[in-house]
Amino acid sequence: MKQHELIIKMILDSWLTQVGYANKLLEALSDDRLHDEIAPGRNRGIYLLGHLASVHDRMLPLLDFGQSLYPDLYEPFVVKPDREVAGLPTVAELRAAWHAVNSKLEENFKTMTADQWLEKHTSVSAEDFAKEPHRNKLNIVLNRTTHLADHFGQLLLLK
Amino acid sequence: MKQHELIIKMILDSWLTQVGYANKLLEALSDDRLHDEIAPGRNRGIYLLGHLASVHDRMLPLLDFGQSLYPDLYEPFVVKPDREVAGLPTVAELRAAWHAVNSKLEENFKTMTADQWLEKHTSVSAEDFAKEPHRNKLNIVLNRTTHLADHFGQLLLLK
Repeated sequence: MKQHELIIKMILDSWLTQVGYANKLLEALSDDRLHDEIAPGRNRGIYLLGHLASVHDRMLPLLDFGQSLYPDLYEPFVVKPDREVAGLPTVAELRAAWHAVNSKLEENFKTMTADQWLEKHTSVSAEDFAKEPHRNKLNIVLNRTTHLADHFGQLLLLK
Repeated sequence: MKQHELIIKMILDSWLTQVGYANKLLEALSDDRLHDEIAPGRNRGIYLLGHLASVHDRMLPLLDFGQSLYPDLYEPFVVKPDREVAGLPTVAELRAAWHAVNSKLEENFKTMTADQWLEKHTSVSAEDFAKEPHRNKLNIVLNRTTHLADHFGQLLLLK
């Protein structure tokens, strides 16, 4: 395995590890428990679950893996803060979305070559990418891994 | 810049970004505020600060950058849970330790070549490393970045 292939694998493994931690935690938390706030006056578990599902869903078009599967999650769980939107999906629906988007990401990860990981992601122009080659697909995964870890630490407070 | 050098830079930038976020948050939190719990019955801010300072301090020997600067933080902030040890350092002392270890890490990061990043870290044997080349120094940084993000998300609840 070449050096850059090894490092790409380390980054993908880090992603899979964090998703695995989150899955295990979500299994341990009941739907009722996910309606609780992580701390007084702060986001509820259901909001963080919807937020993570939507952010991961939006990785699909960013990485050129196809369209978002759940575009309707964006407004209530990313644009708007918790408790602002009425008629949210159920926790069961959000769990299903979470698993579906992560599965689709993982399937696509398996087909990517090292060179493809270093291609530009879809929201940067070819011109900017020529100057900023770190704005590649792999960096989206790296960035979303810390994003997940950040919220995982919060969700852990519901355990 | 070669492919593996670009990816190494992305990982180091991700580390620096998370440390920067944490520094900004810690500046915004008073010493008093850091004595509060992040959620009822959970870790206090002072514990998380000491925990992060100790975990980063212990990266120094792991990455072969020299000895730990603050070995005394390990017992009260990593081995033991919060509130179990009396006579903790002050928040001011922990802030100083946090900045000192991150500065020393960053200084050393600047001297590292790509090949050195892919050398084994100091707690894996040469024999195991031959079979598991991902157990390199760079992976320590990747792993500690998600660790930091995890606790950063929790500290953010004090804001």
